[in-house]
Amino acid sequence: MGNLTVLPIPDLPMVQPGDDLVAIINEAMAKADLSFQEDDILVLAQKIISKSEGRFARLSDMEPSAQAHAIAEETGKEPDFVEMVLSQSNDVVRTGPNVLIVEAFTGIVMANAGIDRSNIDRGEGDDNALLLPLDSDVSARALRDQFVEQSGKTIAVVIADSVGRAWRYGTSAMAIGCAGLEPLDDQRGDVDMFGHTLEVTEIALADQVAAAANLVMGEATEAIPAAIVRGLSYPRTDRPSSVLIRKKEEDLFR
Amino acid sequence: MGNLTVLPIPDLPMVQPGDDLVAIINEAMAKADLSFQEDDILVLAQKIISKSEGRFARLSDMEPSAQAHAIAEETGKEPDFVEMVLSQSNDVVRTGPNVLIVEAFTGIVMANAGIDRSNIDRGEGDDNALLLPLDSDVSARALRDQFVEQSGKTIAVVIADSVGRAWRYGTSAMAIGCAGLEPLDDQRGDVDMFGHTLEVTEIALADQVAAAANLVMGEATEAIPAAIVRGLSYPRTDRPSSVLIRKKEEDLFR
Repeated sequence: MGNLTVLPIPDLPMVQPGDDLVAIINEAMAKADLSFQEDDILVLAQKIISKSEGRFARLSDMEPSAQAHAIAEETGKEPDFVEMVLSQSNDVVRTGPNVLIVEAFTGIVMANAGIDRSNIDRGEGDDNALLLPLDSDVSARALRDQFVEQSGKTIAVVIADSVGRAWRYGTSAMAIGCAGLEPLDDQRGDVDMFGHTLEVTEIALADQVAAAANLVMGEATEAIPAAIVRGLSYPRTDRPSSVLIRKKEEDLFR
Repeated sequence: MGNLTVLPIPDLPMVQPGDDLVAIINEAMAKADLSFQEDDILVLAQKIISKSEGRFARLSDMEPSAQAHAIAEETGKEPDFVEMVLSQSNDVVRTGPNVLIVEAFTGIVMANAGIDRSNIDRGEGDDNALLLPLDSDVSARALRDQFVEQSGKTIAVVIADSVGRAWRYGTSAMAIGCAGLEPLDDQRGDVDMFGHTLEVTEIALADQVAAAANLVMGEATEAIPAAIVRGLSYPRTDRPSSVLIRKKEEDLFR
């Protein structure tokens, strides 16, 4: 394994609904004198995918149910916001003071169904919120296909989101979408340095790629929503990032 | 933020109890024509810290308690191994078929108290296992102090371990020890691109550094237990990685 490099793609404009992300990223890369190399992994923040797909919703459009009011009471969150979270969820997993953890419609367990109110134009009356992309694996694949066709290089795409975790403070990025790289690298059956068979070694490759890229992406004013991870050798497969989601019946923490 | 590079340190010898890790790493770096630059982060696999500190234990020395036998029955694991896990744990968090999740003596929630039987010399009768370092934050600090003194460069050290997670398949690396970089970067109070105050943005910086390094480290025969993360700008602090451990009373998944 050689060196791995994470290259931020600077100076992307604010993404608007309907924007052509491929064109925007190509332009920013050209300005920064960047071009794709074979096996590059393009990591994109969930936020720009959601924005380009117009996944905005208005808090004032919500009509909070009795359940939403009860959860609002318990969590201290606004009933409109709770209703929006519930509308984007399959299931409530845990609630607590200022905490609402759900299984989002995507199947991923996360706080607030991934709904975001940072780094978006909240509009008049502070009303807008940003939802997750409808299917980030589909979005990743469509973007990858276009980049591969235009660049002539076989690259992979990962869509990253920052999330909280059980047991540990702080957010870390994970992959909510991917295309062109194996999200879950199964090394079971390989042998270790002493010839013993490795027992439990499925590596969450796409999540670690997202975390590495997130180191250059940042959260605040200088946020960079796109980066290239270069130099990683990885299995090229067509499996979606959803294979990373632990089945509910195999999850001891649901 | 500029580019970030992850440089594997190749050709480290198998580490033995009592080995001088600083000397071993300096030698491998010199051979690879690597030298520290200001603000480099040296990421080391838990395994080589444990080995150099002689943290081996023998399964045949265990005397399984009634609790160990009951858990062995439930999990399908060997009673000797379960007893060893319990001896290294504060608390059992969950058990299931082939699953034993505990709060290790370090306070970290993880499977099998981090006890490892891959990539170690299991000795006669397949008897050896490798325990976590006694205090990885202390180990990280001692190593950092020596590297800083010898190199004249202010670097940071992270000790990484690969662990399973709630809700998702696959292992990802986290920091079980660190020195010289802020493990939990608190950006609360900063403003986003629209001037809104960021609400929940504590970033698990040390964990993401560990995950990035883990991409070049691998698990199997070609395992590389040390890497340098270069080009990250981070707050230099003296806080230990243990600040990443969510307090039990604030954890909804215990």
